[in-house]
Amino acid sequence: MTERTTELDRAHVFHSWSAQAALKPLVIAGGLGCRVWDFDGRSYLDFSSQLVNVNIGHQHPAVIRAITEQAQTLTTISPATANLARGEAAKRITDRAPEGFNKVFFTNGGADANENAIRMARLHTGRDKVLSLYKSYHGNTGSAIVATGDWRRIPNEYARGHVHFFGPFLYRSEFWATTEQEECARALHHLERVIQSEGPASVAAIMLESVPGTAGIMLPPTGYLAGVRALCDKYGIMLIFDEVMCGFGRTGRWFAFEAYDVVPDLITFAKGVNSGYVPTGGVIISDPIAADFDETVFPGGLTYSGHPLAMASIVGALDAMEDEGIVENAARIGRDVLAPALTALQAAHRIIGEVRGDGVFWALELVADRDTREPVGAAVMARIKSELLARGLLPFLIENRIHVVPPCVVTDDEVAEAVAIYDEVLSLDLLS
Amino acid sequence: MTERTTELDRAHVFHSWSAQAALKPLVIAGGLGCRVWDFDGRSYLDFSSQLVNVNIGHQHPAVIRAITEQAQTLTTISPATANLARGEAAKRITDRAPEGFNKVFFTNGGADANENAIRMARLHTGRDKVLSLYKSYHGNTGSAIVATGDWRRIPNEYARGHVHFFGPFLYRSEFWATTEQEECARALHHLERVIQSEGPASVAAIMLESVPGTAGIMLPPTGYLAGVRALCDKYGIMLIFDEVMCGFGRTGRWFAFEAYDVVPDLITFAKGVNSGYVPTGGVIISDPIAADFDETVFPGGLTYSGHPLAMASIVGALDAMEDEGIVENAARIGRDVLAPALTALQAAHRIIGEVRGDGVFWALELVADRDTREPVGAAVMARIKSELLARGLLPFLIENRIHVVPPCVVTDDEVAEAVAIYDEVLSLDLLS
Repeated sequence: MTERTTELDRAHVFHSWSAQAALKPLVIAGGLGCRVWDFDGRSYLDFSSQLVNVNIGHQHPAVIRAITEQAQTLTTISPATANLARGEAAKRITDRAPEGFNKVFFTNGGADANENAIRMARLHTGRDKVLSLYKSYHGNTGSAIVATGDWRRIPNEYARGHVHFFGPFLYRSEFWATTEQEECARALHHLERVIQSEGPASVAAIMLESVPGTAGIMLPPTGYLAGVRALCDKYGIMLIFDEVMCGFGRTGRWFAFEAYDVVPDLITFAKGVNSGYVPTGGVIISDPIAADFDETVFPGGLTYSGHPLAMASIVGALDAMEDEGIVENAARIGRDVLAPALTALQAAHRIIGEVRGDGVFWALELVADRDTREPVGAAVMARIKSELLARGLLPFLIENRIHVVPPCVVTDDEVAEAVAIYDEVLSLDLLS
Repeated sequence: MTERTTELDRAHVFHSWSAQAALKPLVIAGGLGCRVWDFDGRSYLDFSSQLVNVNIGHQHPAVIRAITEQAQTLTTISPATANLARGEAAKRITDRAPEGFNKVFFTNGGADANENAIRMARLHTGRDKVLSLYKSYHGNTGSAIVATGDWRRIPNEYARGHVHFFGPFLYRSEFWATTEQEECARALHHLERVIQSEGPASVAAIMLESVPGTAGIMLPPTGYLAGVRALCDKYGIMLIFDEVMCGFGRTGRWFAFEAYDVVPDLITFAKGVNSGYVPTGGVIISDPIAADFDETVFPGGLTYSGHPLAMASIVGALDAMEDEGIVENAARIGRDVLAPALTALQAAHRIIGEVRGDGVFWALELVADRDTREPVGAAVMARIKSELLARGLLPFLIENRIHVVPPCVVTDDEVAEAVAIYDEVLSLDLLS
């Protein structure tokens, strides 16, 4: 099976964000909880949650059951109909959203969730520009990829009206700040100067991951999101929180922004809502924006909006997360297990320049030198990846960072096992 | 169940392409083959295939089985891995594509398939502009919606580099033509003038639905697609065929463009490939474009690219379509059953100005006056819709047209039943 899988993959499958020729993709045959395995009986502790989406763990029986049952009944139906699973899923989502968020527009994933949030903000304000962070990732499609701030934006800049700014990140401050408080104040000043310089009347939305994920899991300092909210209110700008990666349990809360006592105008989601068991995503819409489209046609839509199979998997996943206290587990693991363990790891290894995170959403910033904070290079990261894999840990590595992002169901023992592997690999002579 | 479904829908579900307040969505509880039913035992003959996607019919047991089995094994996995179902799906797709198409990039649906085809064409050519038809629909996301030519583009024009042109459509010619041959020649002349006027060196791609679908199922006249191919070759432009709606059996062929003896550079698909049982889509990539990304990173990707559950449903659907001769059935039904029946319908009803189509992909153009070809208005269409529904037929109506688009598994008897219903409704006094 390994051979046929690899052969077919190399012959016919074109992979995301990659040069294709040299790829040697890992073959995964199955999984359960925090583990996956290949066809040859080798298993891996999954501390990546794949692309930080398998919040409920692999092959959760309640979600599999929900998918299987819905598949027997009605697999697919037009979005123009009313569908019970769709209504049940929407209700479970709006029940967890702040007051005044009563409607959900379902999409196929996070990118088109962001596309539609941008569309709604533009139509609501009658303005064009969307401000987002340089350190951000919002998706692969036309507007979403240009809202994205990282290198992936640059070969794709075919949408207009996107402007980028710098966010707070004290460890690598763009504002010459030396304290969190100073970083926060200066980041807000910078954002307001960007808004003023772009012309406030031209700005439809500020789109932010509540906690930027792929870009480095940088928790916003106290007061930052509230400050952004205040700027939005001051200038009539819609605030969009992208909760695609950080939402639905990842930070130990249903929504990451709950930690900051701030309410946006639009919330986008995907990944954790059903752990990606069936492709889906969506926008949770605040009442004033939803009301715009009571009498006026909303100019957006898609064939698989509110797809029954995806909707059933949302219902199955959210009910199981609730019943089994999975979000609470993520919070407890973060606070009581990962925080001390990763702090201890940093104390033991000079290569770890900073540890930051919450819940099951942590980053280890690896540096060649703690004083200069110079990031370690690609060769070091490649070595770390292969050493971790060789020890049975499936990691999430990006740039100079290890993202410690297990499923929300991870146990104390599994954290201990993973931390021992990180410890062993970081003890190798990596920098010479 | 009807009540709860409707209540949840009205409270929490935001619908595609709609003003939300007045919606009264049909509640569908289940389906099989060409029929769906509600919770109260009322059944409908589905001559819409939902959004023209359920090519294999509702709840085909082989596809349900494939989904159920994959769900037991491995529901989701990162696109960076190699996955057996993904490789098997890609092989089944490339096996049906023209020679020289060996790789598939999977997406979540048709819109992001078109997004990525546009991305590839732009990167391959180093050019910016994408030419597409005014009468077209290419999806809901940033670039796809602007590539779209219809009204849905206009409130969404935030992507640059999109240019639209007119295609051949003799019944409502934009070129003052009186024969198919003249329409074809003039449409090609018009396209070449647009290319020349935009500057050929700026044009990355021409994107066309091989047979425009939502815009009216307008089969291209003999020589048109070959003429477009020749213009692409002359000016170094990539030709993208959007087979999202017309592909995978809809026209009685695996790909609609097979009827025209023309090979594009990129092919996009979704809908029929797995009848939408799990959200998926993709781009079939010709070798020269795929080779661009052997050593260079492809700057596109998504979390659910090649999602195992979707991939298993593709394998299940394509194998069943092959084994059961479902594409051949669509061809036979079109040629031997729908063509004569719809022609007879036109002979009986002056309201039908034109009948056109192929396979299970037909349009009845309804006119208030056969001489002026004035389209019937929205009130007439609304009346027709409710009369058809009242007689147990679920129709696809758009603008002034009935699209006759049943699943590819439709039987002679089901066509006879539907045609009798169309006949009865069109016999009503609709125009007074």
